[in-house]
Amino acid sequence: MNVRTSRDPKQLTEAMLAGDRVALARLITLVENRTLHSTEIMSRIYSRCGNATTIGITGPPGAGKSTLTSCVIEHLRARGKTVGVVAVDPSSPFTGGSVLGDRIRMQKHFLDPGVFIRSLSTRGSHGGLARAGRDVARLFDAFGKDFVVIETVGVGQTELDIMEVADTVVVVLVPEAGDTIQVMKAGLLEIANVFVVNKADREGATRMRTELEMMLHLKTSEGEDAEWKVPVLMTQASKGEGAEALLDACLSHVEFLNGRSGGKQLGKRARGEVLDICEEELMRRLRARSGDPLIASMLDAVTRGEIDPYQAALDLLGSEQGLAKLIARDGNG
Amino acid sequence: MNVRTSRDPKQLTEAMLAGDRVALARLITLVENRTLHSTEIMSRIYSRCGNATTIGITGPPGAGKSTLTSCVIEHLRARGKTVGVVAVDPSSPFTGGSVLGDRIRMQKHFLDPGVFIRSLSTRGSHGGLARAGRDVARLFDAFGKDFVVIETVGVGQTELDIMEVADTVVVVLVPEAGDTIQVMKAGLLEIANVFVVNKADREGATRMRTELEMMLHLKTSEGEDAEWKVPVLMTQASKGEGAEALLDACLSHVEFLNGRSGGKQLGKRARGEVLDICEEELMRRLRARSGDPLIASMLDAVTRGEIDPYQAALDLLGSEQGLAKLIARDGNG
Repeated sequence: MNVRTSRDPKQLTEAMLAGDRVALARLITLVENRTLHSTEIMSRIYSRCGNATTIGITGPPGAGKSTLTSCVIEHLRARGKTVGVVAVDPSSPFTGGSVLGDRIRMQKHFLDPGVFIRSLSTRGSHGGLARAGRDVARLFDAFGKDFVVIETVGVGQTELDIMEVADTVVVVLVPEAGDTIQVMKAGLLEIANVFVVNKADREGATRMRTELEMMLHLKTSEGEDAEWKVPVLMTQASKGEGAEALLDACLSHVEFLNGRSGGKQLGKRARGEVLDICEEELMRRLRARSGDPLIASMLDAVTRGEIDPYQAALDLLGSEQGLAKLIARDGNG
Repeated sequence: MNVRTSRDPKQLTEAMLAGDRVALARLITLVENRTLHSTEIMSRIYSRCGNATTIGITGPPGAGKSTLTSCVIEHLRARGKTVGVVAVDPSSPFTGGSVLGDRIRMQKHFLDPGVFIRSLSTRGSHGGLARAGRDVARLFDAFGKDFVVIETVGVGQTELDIMEVADTVVVVLVPEAGDTIQVMKAGLLEIANVFVVNKADREGATRMRTELEMMLHLKTSEGEDAEWKVPVLMTQASKGEGAEALLDACLSHVEFLNGRSGGKQLGKRARGEVLDICEEELMRRLRARSGDPLIASMLDAVTRGEIDPYQAALDLLGSEQGLAKLIARDGNG
């Protein structure tokens, strides 16, 4: 078998679990593109997951997340830890392209065999990017990386969804990012395990920290993080200042999680994931079958204006000879 | 029938199409919450859509979108047009809450019967917010509003998805928003039909306009907007300056669209929407059935660690007595 060209999930996963970096790269591509085999691939490697610590770094554009990520990687490497990096650029719906800025900033790590960096810019459907991010993080985990760092650009719902895979979520802000009410609007207050005010030398940094601390204090003590006091750190990523303290804060949070639940969060999430994976598989099969006469004739009727798209969908789903059977026939189980 | 309490899609849609504002408000709530009936509701009103002009206003947090939206509404009202406003706040995954700032800024329009404002903060699944935004915009359209203005906070994928329903997309930036490369990263260059540099009195505004114009010039002339020259306007929304010119630019773009295709974009999108609506219906039925013995026993096996979530999903979909039949039995068709 040549792992450089193989698309066979069994061969590739076996090679990857034996330490083959090329097989890992191929698998990431297959999973990123949400190909027909991605669910099978993930099933094959799932039992090897759960050893890595996953750190999510998010925040508004221009907050210096990439620079900070780069600093954190440096400290992890200095401590002898291996790292997988998932850099998520919001996809452009037209070009599908991502700007290479983040990769350029991280170039010093590209020659280090202990670091594996992958940029994702998944085109396409709702939730695809979050699922790809989650699965690539798990591939790194199964491959044996000690740490996985997920960096997301932007503050939208998709980016928050990606953070669900992280053990520890770092939210990076800058004094210029607008008043702290934006943080609340974007839902960042709820997901942050650690706050960072980057570019801490700029005007307004101390005020921002105070505001964040006040908001955190006001936040009702409920939910799973009730006993974890979210710290607000000050950094200057461009000079590397504060990055090691950030890493230590993340490690403290992971220690807190381990102490509380006796392990990583992987297992707890698994149940909730089943229906999410079903959803994606259903859609993949549906789209793969869109040329089928049943679906095609319905789409044509919609194009001719004979039926509205909502009723067309209801008719397709309700049809005795319909969609449901088409979907089951694609089953791998 | 009392439209204040009814949940019957037929009664509510008939009352709404006859001009009942309470029925409209009830329908918006049902559609926003993506209830079991939302697909049926949309099917009932679809034939009445296509008359309104839909303007999407987006951009990073703190760009002044709400203030600008408010100004645009004012000018539309001065021209005797009725307006429906969809204000989309990113949902907080934990609280489901939205901050009321935008509504407060728009309060002067709340007493005007020609303006109907609705804030959305859909909790929940991937794509739900985009679908809710699209459907609420169509409810306004079917109700007879001349214009629908959709304002989204944030620049993530979800927010871009919402913009797909708009005839004209306005991207609002401020000089502080970071360098213009962020615009490219976020995919805003591709979706903008009109650019606005708001807070135009601030330092860097002219430079930002020049950079945007350069990027627009460099953008390869391809795709459907090849003949439309994207303007870059300067505004000071807080003083109302530039808002009328913005409205005129939007109207020019709509005129351009009408001249090119002989009509609104509604019909062209319908075909592509069928599978998207199927996807959502499938998921709604799947989740509604999660207590069914077949699904419940599989979820329990995942919790006990006997099977991984990926294989569980494949088994569910592939089962002869499986999911497919459960889904078809929920059919309304």
